[in-house]
Amino acid sequence: MESATAQLLETGKKVGADSWQQRVKNQTPHCAFGESGTCCRICSMGPCRITPKAPRGICGCDAHGIVGRNYLRFTAGGAATHSDHGRSIAETLYLSAEDGNYKVKDPEKLLRIAAEWDIPTEGRDIYDVAHEVALTGLQEYGKPFGVQRFLKRAPEHTQELWHKAGIEPRAIDKEVSQSMHMSHMGNSSLPEALVRQSLRAGLSDGWGGSMMGTEFSDVMFGTPKPVDTEANLGVMEKDMVNIIVHGHDPSLSEMIVYYANDPELIAYAKTFGAKGINVAGVCCTSNEVAMRHGIPMAGNFLQQENVVLTGACEAVVVDVQCIFPALGPLSKCFHTKFITTSPICRMPDSDFIEFEPANAGENAYNIVKTAIENFPNRRQELVNIPSMKKKATVGYSVEAIKKCLDGVTNSHIDDLNTMKPLIECVKSGVLRGAVAFVGCNNPKIRPDTAHIELMKKMLEHDIILVVSGCAAQAAAKAGLMDKEARKYCGEGLKRVCTLVDIPPVLHMGSCVDISRMMILASDIAKDWGINISQIPLVGCAPEWMSEKAVSIGNYVVATGIETFLGVNPYTKGSSEVEGLLQGSIEDWVEAKFVVDLDIDSMGDRMIECIEKKRTALGI
Amino acid sequence: MESATAQLLETGKKVGADSWQQRVKNQTPHCAFGESGTCCRICSMGPCRITPKAPRGICGCDAHGIVGRNYLRFTAGGAATHSDHGRSIAETLYLSAEDGNYKVKDPEKLLRIAAEWDIPTEGRDIYDVAHEVALTGLQEYGKPFGVQRFLKRAPEHTQELWHKAGIEPRAIDKEVSQSMHMSHMGNSSLPEALVRQSLRAGLSDGWGGSMMGTEFSDVMFGTPKPVDTEANLGVMEKDMVNIIVHGHDPSLSEMIVYYANDPELIAYAKTFGAKGINVAGVCCTSNEVAMRHGIPMAGNFLQQENVVLTGACEAVVVDVQCIFPALGPLSKCFHTKFITTSPICRMPDSDFIEFEPANAGENAYNIVKTAIENFPNRRQELVNIPSMKKKATVGYSVEAIKKCLDGVTNSHIDDLNTMKPLIECVKSGVLRGAVAFVGCNNPKIRPDTAHIELMKKMLEHDIILVVSGCAAQAAAKAGLMDKEARKYCGEGLKRVCTLVDIPPVLHMGSCVDISRMMILASDIAKDWGINISQIPLVGCAPEWMSEKAVSIGNYVVATGIETFLGVNPYTKGSSEVEGLLQGSIEDWVEAKFVVDLDIDSMGDRMIECIEKKRTALGI
Repeated sequence: MESATAQLLETGKKVGADSWQQRVKNQTPHCAFGESGTCCRICSMGPCRITPKAPRGICGCDAHGIVGRNYLRFTAGGAATHSDHGRSIAETLYLSAEDGNYKVKDPEKLLRIAAEWDIPTEGRDIYDVAHEVALTGLQEYGKPFGVQRFLKRAPEHTQELWHKAGIEPRAIDKEVSQSMHMSHMGNSSLPEALVRQSLRAGLSDGWGGSMMGTEFSDVMFGTPKPVDTEANLGVMEKDMVNIIVHGHDPSLSEMIVYYANDPELIAYAKTFGAKGINVAGVCCTSNEVAMRHGIPMAGNFLQQENVVLTGACEAVVVDVQCIFPALGPLSKCFHTKFITTSPICRMPDSDFIEFEPANAGENAYNIVKTAIENFPNRRQELVNIPSMKKKATVGYSVEAIKKCLDGVTNSHIDDLNTMKPLIECVKSGVLRGAVAFVGCNNPKIRPDTAHIELMKKMLEHDIILVVSGCAAQAAAKAGLMDKEARKYCGEGLKRVCTLVDIPPVLHMGSCVDISRMMILASDIAKDWGINISQIPLVGCAPEWMSEKAVSIGNYVVATGIETFLGVNPYTKGSSEVEGLLQGSIEDWVEAKFVVDLDIDSMGDRMIECIEKKRTALGI
Repeated sequence: MESATAQLLETGKKVGADSWQQRVKNQTPHCAFGESGTCCRICSMGPCRITPKAPRGICGCDAHGIVGRNYLRFTAGGAATHSDHGRSIAETLYLSAEDGNYKVKDPEKLLRIAAEWDIPTEGRDIYDVAHEVALTGLQEYGKPFGVQRFLKRAPEHTQELWHKAGIEPRAIDKEVSQSMHMSHMGNSSLPEALVRQSLRAGLSDGWGGSMMGTEFSDVMFGTPKPVDTEANLGVMEKDMVNIIVHGHDPSLSEMIVYYANDPELIAYAKTFGAKGINVAGVCCTSNEVAMRHGIPMAGNFLQQENVVLTGACEAVVVDVQCIFPALGPLSKCFHTKFITTSPICRMPDSDFIEFEPANAGENAYNIVKTAIENFPNRRQELVNIPSMKKKATVGYSVEAIKKCLDGVTNSHIDDLNTMKPLIECVKSGVLRGAVAFVGCNNPKIRPDTAHIELMKKMLEHDIILVVSGCAAQAAAKAGLMDKEARKYCGEGLKRVCTLVDIPPVLHMGSCVDISRMMILASDIAKDWGINISQIPLVGCAPEWMSEKAVSIGNYVVATGIETFLGVNPYTKGSSEVEGLLQGSIEDWVEAKFVVDLDIDSMGDRMIECIEKKRTALGI
């Protein structure tokens, strides 16, 4: 891939394009104060920076308070972002209609949520139920009293821990606002209080906003089941109109996919000399449509510029989050249309076509049409699609995993629809445990390398993997989601994969879908009769980059799952904050963070952690 | 004052105390990237800094996007903070009870709000009404649909401007969360979108959270009316138990004031050799209790360490916001108890006594008792209370101002309870106009000097002043709220002050009470029949420091009032963001920011702006 990228960058040079590789050079070295978290810009008396000679900011806040406040705000940014994505999905569900752009595709899941939330369903129109569920969901963002409804999905022990630690999340937006308030000038500077609120804000995301995002997306677009697809830049088609969907919110990409299959538009594309319309994805939007429709994955976060550099991209259509502003000027070096669609994500050098549930069909149609009409504008001399791509089987929602496990359950003896077959494999030692790989790319790590190397190491050790986000695409591009990837596995895992007919790396979706992993862990704990923290399971984000990742880290740890980070969350500057995050929060939630910038060592420590949990269980 | 401070700092040196003056030296010069807004720490690929050689961050965001995002987050921090204060007041009102710690003291105002919000009042118990109003208020933070209820208080023209600009604030916390989302990595980098959302988030504060904070405080603690008090460190009493209340939320200080007047506790104080109990305030908590009870004001933001340095402070009792973490270690150098009371504001080296509506009475009693018992621990050799203090008349709520104006209204001819007498004075030229002075201290400006010099300049020019926050205390300490201060006024203003029997500087309250100024401006516009932006009125925050101040700035400007800042809001690094804030937002809201670091020039420009508005009105 790296040599292919080098070639693409050559094309870029020809047309005067900038690149993240160049910008990383320009931005290196980074500010050491910022990197260690000891720079404070929270009021205008400063900015203040902590040094041995200046151990306190002007207000008197020390390094621990500053680092703690910055960490809390980082978390709040992530929680707000994921949750606002969830809100947008809930708003779309609220407007779903039998004859509208958005419909209920998984009524069973909708009814299940309604029952959980005590919403009557008997004899009601499914859309009435959908609207009441959506409204109830929207109220989770701002209800004056009470805690998140979905917390009840966790094992009772976990709920008790949250209650005792005072971190049960209340209304989602309230947690964000209070996080901002606590970290405002002249408020909390006690690391313990700031870290506690970080966990709480994180939980409001994972067990609140993100979980609604996932569940309501499933209701509208279908709960994923295994489907075959392909990954890497080679999925772009030389002779077709290439439309790249990029971002996070499936409301947009679902419509684009729909109209890209419209026979009339395909015929229209042919009138411009194209053989058809090819939609491929980048980042989590890609995960969403891959999981549900097998739409190919062009790449992950650090590959977003590459899709334009192929010279064969008619349009990059984006919704929200993780979109490089660089795509604006870059697209101007090519014929590519850079189309922004959300008021949340407005960028210079883009065409803005606002996307709302009411106009979604019409606008998606127009976007596809625009891309088609742009096909003749390609500069053929710039076209260079690296031929690399790998097969992948994706779509492993919790429901799909259980269905796969049902296939190896003796239904005469055992219940169907449980995690028990998996638990038995872990108990017996055929599988040693599981790792949840999540998170982004980050130029601080050679792209995808940490993901892939760690994943391979785990597979060798008979550790099964669940993955999401850009980690998932890294795995897919490396062929680890191909069922043939069992060749990388130890004997035990290989046997399980063959028997259950799954790849050893299970794609669970986008970054909001890490909520699926929370449900998976909860179901395992319940079916096993142990606490989540006892399961031989760890989380890992070796190349994380965004605030969302830190919010995720907080809720994964707070759910009782030890979490390994390959990039420091700007906390090095405070022994107290690090002591909490990487140590004593274990007393509250039975898990903590491990930050390790050395991949080898991190892998060893993950295996060690899993083996320790096995020993503690006596297995 | 400065020589007194120098003496106090000498005492500090003796006991090894740190000071903000020293920390400013340690922290100077500030980071130029941070100060110009061109440092981005929003994801962990960076931090990135914009230079001519590195014109974009790693994601490709340019200086305009980075400055715009930082500005939006700065605003969101302020809006969240003010509004969360409002929420806490609403929660207290929700728990008010005839026999509880918190009661309804201004039922008339409560009924007025209930009527505005279509809440039935006829034949209902006043506490039933209070609870429904409070609940409705709490829902303003998170309702899934609709805009803020109080927007209807603005003139229709203002409401139309907001609607057309797309900046009508929806649920308060939603605006905060969406601000965080928009400014998250890979979302908006278009300055126009970021500035628009900043105005919207600001409006959710000024016409939402802050306005509820003010209104519900009035309901529970009484709407302020003119009352005499004193200001400056000399209000501390050598022979009494000195309790300093500091912060923003009156729920705490009201209770402390109540128990400090308890005969039993006063008798208890006497058993320790004290002559009694003296409560004095710092920052906005001070404004709250001064406005309602005439409690003396010990000082404003940059004077908070001085109260401890007097050696005569038995307890600093704080609630939220603008509390120096420095008070922790500083109090340890003296006998002073540093008592934190809110989970929002947890600080090292403090005694934490959590304050909730249910335990408020009991805890306030215990805090006063603790302070009394601390009296004998004073080290007499360290006691040094500067003898300076000034008289002040405070308590000018909108209601109180109208009442004062009623005194000069001929009720046979004209309506009572209007702004018309004031309008007539402005129309005739007896008064040239008005300035709202608000905001903090900031060591970047010689403390209080900008406030006082500018105020005096305005008074000379027959411009009447309304003030709040630390600006108000600066005025009080300079004697400008003494009715005798008419000696500083031009002939016209002097005449008005004598006739109406008011000081030329009207204290309108704390920083959330800037919402009172919005109502004042609205009422003037309505009674005059012009738009707010046409009134010869400007806002001024010459020494602002906190994120709250920027949130305020946004809503004041968005309400149509030109606003002058003496400290740059970290936006120097983007000509586009500055071009919007200091220029083209005028097209949306008929006002803009003026940033001027030169006091003289700022004063001239304020007068010029007022005169221009007069000319435009033909007066």
